[in-house]
Amino acid sequence: MPIVNIFMDYWFAEIITIGNEVLSGKTINTNAAHIARRLTSLGFTIRRITVVMDEIDEIVAAFKEAIYRKPKVIVSSGGLGPTWDDKTAEGLAKALGVNLELNKEAMNMILEKYSRMNIPITEERKKMAYLPSGAMPVRNDQGIAPGIYIYYENIDILATPGVPREMENVLENFIKDFIRNKPDVKYYEDYLYVEGIMESALAPYVKDLVKKYDIYIKTHPKGYELSHPILEIQIAASGKREDEIKFKVEKTKNELRDIIEKLNGIIRNSL
Amino acid sequence: MPIVNIFMDYWFAEIITIGNEVLSGKTINTNAAHIARRLTSLGFTIRRITVVMDEIDEIVAAFKEAIYRKPKVIVSSGGLGPTWDDKTAEGLAKALGVNLELNKEAMNMILEKYSRMNIPITEERKKMAYLPSGAMPVRNDQGIAPGIYIYYENIDILATPGVPREMENVLENFIKDFIRNKPDVKYYEDYLYVEGIMESALAPYVKDLVKKYDIYIKTHPKGYELSHPILEIQIAASGKREDEIKFKVEKTKNELRDIIEKLNGIIRNSL
Repeated sequence: MPIVNIFMDYWFAEIITIGNEVLSGKTINTNAAHIARRLTSLGFTIRRITVVMDEIDEIVAAFKEAIYRKPKVIVSSGGLGPTWDDKTAEGLAKALGVNLELNKEAMNMILEKYSRMNIPITEERKKMAYLPSGAMPVRNDQGIAPGIYIYYENIDILATPGVPREMENVLENFIKDFIRNKPDVKYYEDYLYVEGIMESALAPYVKDLVKKYDIYIKTHPKGYELSHPILEIQIAASGKREDEIKFKVEKTKNELRDIIEKLNGIIRNSL
Repeated sequence: MPIVNIFMDYWFAEIITIGNEVLSGKTINTNAAHIARRLTSLGFTIRRITVVMDEIDEIVAAFKEAIYRKPKVIVSSGGLGPTWDDKTAEGLAKALGVNLELNKEAMNMILEKYSRMNIPITEERKKMAYLPSGAMPVRNDQGIAPGIYIYYENIDILATPGVPREMENVLENFIKDFIRNKPDVKYYEDYLYVEGIMESALAPYVKDLVKKYDIYIKTHPKGYELSHPILEIQIAASGKREDEIKFKVEKTKNELRDIIEKLNGIIRNSL
């Protein structure tokens, strides 16, 4: 895995999705993809995505296992709402070995929203203000339940709601106001689209280039290997200096282009 | 988590996705959703979905951890192709503590496909015929790389390619010809669509019904909790007898309908 060599100091991140609807296949995990793209753009490498049930023991296990692998950031989504099966706050508290506490700031955020609509507070609604001891609420401009942020064993841990627009908003507020571990690397990627070369035919050349440039190259087959092969080739690098990694990616891209032309492949502008 | 109570004997399954493109968020994990839906339809409960890097140690860890939790079925996708970064066969072999072996049946499947097109076999192409010792190839009618099936510690383990149509085909061939652990339960689910009731307002009623009927109810918020709440309500049950679980789901649905009408909610036919 060349990306491991590229990153000097492994700015690993992990993503946890909590929700039976993802496990049953009813919901496709677009939340994890969004969080992954956003963290990748900051220079993180996502090491693992874990999807677990709306069940305390499963949530505790997911957080504990992720913490054990010592990533720089853990972002979860799901399980922060007012219903009986929203158990992320409790699961996170148990994983950290702390209690849930009524957080005044979170309570004010929630009260303010309901009172603006003249809606009374109930036990179910108050539930969203209970955070693990030591955690801070993260503003949710798109819904009620605040995100939960805690810095634990040098890991930035963020829990976001499962509704996509709320998750995205809480994630941005976390990046703006809370995150402490920010990679000091730049990330750059580029693509080549090729028709008429089998993935298996290109494989030995790609292998050589990966070694030669210590770079990340991934061929994504999009057509039919035998009858009509189409490949999307991703070339990516990270490093301290943007001009250096850009140069490396473009150099690799040019060499690949030559190889493809030698193999009678057709280079296309897009898929 | 009511589904745990429903299933007498936990027909748990796990899904492993191998691929950096999913971890970077470039690819949305539709493969896991498809496998989840298909296994759920057979009566399994997916306990966990794990996404790991195209990296031997990560793949080994994912399989070992899943095996340790003793599900009935483990299905992976990704990492079975001809390229240097396709490492699933090797990772699975290491997780099981066995060697990779050239499998004659797999080799014949691969040879037959390439020779039909008059394409010579290379080291990269031959790689796809190396399976963990004791494993069997699963026919792939949509591509080259066969799936890998092995029955290990009473677990049906299947590795499928990452290309969606190949994964789907190999999964079906596995269900038809290989799977040994088949749940003896039936699964039934139905939906209600509601406008004008906040998820938090319905929450205490849902909680009561879940307890009363020992049933799975999940509210999926689709609108805006405060200004324009829309809910999709999933009601699901599993059990030995189809008529019994259907009756339970419909009874719950009718009670929910009454509650919704009392709360001045509007029941819609679809979203």
